Amino acid sequence: MNFRIISYIIGWVCNFQAVFMLLPCVTAMVYMENDFFAFLLSMGICLTIGLPLTVIKPRNKVFYIKDGCVAVALSWIAMCVTGSLPFLFTNSIAHPIDALFETVSGFTTTGSSILTDVEVLPHCILIWRSFTHWIGGMGVLVFLLSLLPLAGGYHMNLMKAESPGPSVSKLVPKVQSTAKILYTIYIAMSVIQMIFLLIGNVPLFDTLCITFGTAGTGGFGIKNDSMGSYSSYCQIVTTVFMILFGVNFSVYYLVITKKIKQALKFEEIRYYFGIITAAIILITLNTTHLFANVGEAIRQSAFQVGSIITTTGFSSTDFNQWPALSKTILVLLMFVGACAGSTGGGIKVSRFLILCKAAKKELQLYLHPNAVKKIKMDDKTITHDVLRSTNIFLTLYILIFAVSVLIVSLDNFDLIINFTAVAATLNNIGPGLEIVGPMGNFNSFSYLSKSVLIFDMLAGRLEIFPLILLFFKGTWKKF
Amino acid sequence: MNFRIISYIIGWVCNFQAVFMLLPCVTAMVYMENDFFAFLLSMGICLTIGLPLTVIKPRNKVFYIKDGCVAVALSWIAMCVTGSLPFLFTNSIAHPIDALFETVSGFTTTGSSILTDVEVLPHCILIWRSFTHWIGGMGVLVFLLSLLPLAGGYHMNLMKAESPGPSVSKLVPKVQSTAKILYTIYIAMSVIQMIFLLIGNVPLFDTLCITFGTAGTGGFGIKNDSMGSYSSYCQIVTTVFMILFGVNFSVYYLVITKKIKQALKFEEIRYYFGIITAAIILITLNTTHLFANVGEAIRQSAFQVGSIITTTGFSSTDFNQWPALSKTILVLLMFVGACAGSTGGGIKVSRFLILCKAAKKELQLYLHPNAVKKIKMDDKTITHDVLRSTNIFLTLYILIFAVSVLIVSLDNFDLIINFTAVAATLNNIGPGLEIVGPMGNFNSFSYLSKSVLIFDMLAGRLEIFPLILLFFKGTWKKF
Repeated sequence: MNFRIISYIIGWVCNFQAVFMLLPCVTAMVYMENDFFAFLLSMGICLTIGLPLTVIKPRNKVFYIKDGCVAVALSWIAMCVTGSLPFLFTNSIAHPIDALFETVSGFTTTGSSILTDVEVLPHCILIWRSFTHWIGGMGVLVFLLSLLPLAGGYHMNLMKAESPGPSVSKLVPKVQSTAKILYTIYIAMSVIQMIFLLIGNVPLFDTLCITFGTAGTGGFGIKNDSMGSYSSYCQIVTTVFMILFGVNFSVYYLVITKKIKQALKFEEIRYYFGIITAAIILITLNTTHLFANVGEAIRQSAFQVGSIITTTGFSSTDFNQWPALSKTILVLLMFVGACAGSTGGGIKVSRFLILCKAAKKELQLYLHPNAVKKIKMDDKTITHDVLRSTNIFLTLYILIFAVSVLIVSLDNFDLIINFTAVAATLNNIGPGLEIVGPMGNFNSFSYLSKSVLIFDMLAGRLEIFPLILLFFKGTWKKF
Repeated sequence: MNFRIISYIIGWVCNFQAVFMLLPCVTAMVYMENDFFAFLLSMGICLTIGLPLTVIKPRNKVFYIKDGCVAVALSWIAMCVTGSLPFLFTNSIAHPIDALFETVSGFTTTGSSILTDVEVLPHCILIWRSFTHWIGGMGVLVFLLSLLPLAGGYHMNLMKAESPGPSVSKLVPKVQSTAKILYTIYIAMSVIQMIFLLIGNVPLFDTLCITFGTAGTGGFGIKNDSMGSYSSYCQIVTTVFMILFGVNFSVYYLVITKKIKQALKFEEIRYYFGIITAAIILITLNTTHLFANVGEAIRQSAFQVGSIITTTGFSSTDFNQWPALSKTILVLLMFVGACAGSTGGGIKVSRFLILCKAAKKELQLYLHPNAVKKIKMDDKTITHDVLRSTNIFLTLYILIFAVSVLIVSLDNFDLIINFTAVAATLNNIGPGLEIVGPMGNFNSFSYLSKSVLIFDMLAGRLEIFPLILLFFKGTWKKF
């Protein structure tokens, strides 16, 4: 274990955190809110930790995949802990575990909240909440990579550990350049969404918060009814951008570099849009009697489907009141998740594709026991390693899910609440059903349950392996 | 595809079915019930189908694993269809799909019922219902193998397709001898349970029905409150035998042949008893306030845990009223299931063991990327084939589960009902929660949902692959 580099990276994360807090600081000044000083204090603490750790550049460059995982996991924990300070200092949230829950929910782009009334919060806290989504959406270390003059072979190991999906590919030969391209696309798309919202007369503050929540597929609302009270135009723009941010970013790179043919070949994207279309049609048919007309039903279905499959978690209506079929479709979409290489969470469409292809191959082996077949996606062979780690991911996912539901059930809520609360956090979505539904929140859970859900949110965002490794004794051996 | 042998096997299944129906026939005579003729008619139909198919022995001996799967799947379907005839002819159940549901539930040892009042049924129908559990528990084709003078290499392929668990091993070199040993153990244990029940003054008729339900891990009750009104002694005997019938039968063979050391080495058995003990302790602690004393709480917990993990499905109390933690434990146990090579259903303890070991190995790869490690169980290496098919099993299991819940949700019951109804049938358990709980039944579902649940019961008992293969075009090609 290369502790030196890991603490160096964590130090930089703390420094960046201080820089990120400039946005809520400025907001506090604009709205003349006293909470300005809470943010200054938090920035001071971040720099007090960060600067000493980053003064000396580490010389030992040996950095294995294990170090990459530990660095990512610890960086995220450091980021969430320091990020929760403003909530405590402004007294917006009283208990440290509640504050941590809210911050982890922000950075992991989950969007589950323990707050019962967000409309009483100061602007600077609201924008900080939403901004954590935007920071967490693309990943902090990918951002670090694109800016820091780090040398050595550890970029790929960091990126592998932080980026979502069964396998990570570079767009261009250099990892840093890949990171830069990804962040450029991310910023550009966010700006485009902002322009669309501003055209629709959405106030600038709301525009910023909604865009941060959409781009990071986070889902914190700044109104108590999430997106329910915004105009249809605003909801439609948000629907479209939620779905766009759930697409593998490589596709955008291919489109920009005019490799349209290659972009259209992505199987994951085709299935992603196929699933979305099918879900919207089924839910529209199932809920059409609840709305004034078919158009309204389509709009509401599309918003909720886009919000859940991309694991954003905004809501424009209380889908808790929908018929069982629609609710079941939404619960299933919670697990499907978005595309690999997007800002969305969940198990990911590509993992399901890989698993289904493997299943089909296995069944064909019954027919032709001696046939040698390879599993292909996008005309490329899926390596044995990717398949194996996808299978293991599924196993660990199920185990974490089961244990979480078990512990949360100690609070004696009913099974649907426990099940959807874990599903909503482990998949980084936000709302579940019933009391944790779109009009509810996570405040009623005990601190034990909240701690479990905090773990689940982090496990979901970091795709399990990096976080689980922290609990292995062997990880902490020096060599 | 060797259609000749397959139809020959199906023919024998029908012949045997006629023989099996002698038991309810005799029962009808003893209790002087008119339904005697319904069984005679059913036997006649079975023989009309069976005898012509079995007159000529097939000469073509080419029999692949694919043929084994198809033979097993079609045999089970034939058995369920012919087995449902008495229900229709006696008018105990009016609708063919309801009758098929009840019969499939019987043979697959599920124990879910569409009947709202079993106590009004004639004795011969009650014993036929329970007897189907006993026949299905060990598998019909294994039975056939042990009796029929079939020659050729297809025994192993039949046994592989019908026996539960990730891999099938022979106890002795010859498959037929293995089948004979298994059936001898099965019959001997059933007789021992009967003796224990008779000692406790349980009437002979009840003794037979309870034993059939226990041995096959089925769970049809002959009282409306399942096992609730029987004596504590009877419930304790049933608890012990439910758990014993969930043990891998190879262990008993090793014990009989005095290879005790080898028997104790079975990891699956150790985990099986470990899980049972842990579950009983947790549920006792969680429910102790509901019962008169701790002893009573332990007895009720043990009964329910034994019943659910072995997928029997008897109940001695309405666990639907238990606190959330206990209910969650039971729901999780539904998926765990019993040991491979037992009469129990579910995913099986050994599959979970294999999956967990694979996950642990994968995590160690992060620490030592170049280490070559093998997954071992009972000191034997788990082959790549077994691991792969276990992974695929999990994938298909999840897919079938999701699609089933989706279709069943069309009936607009709540998510817990849909979820546990599918869990209870796909794992061959019997009761779920709420309206399909231990005091409820499956009658309120639509015929579409019932058909889906019929499919799930068969898929659960045959462990998915053989049934799914029927839907592959390639399966039906002659060569």
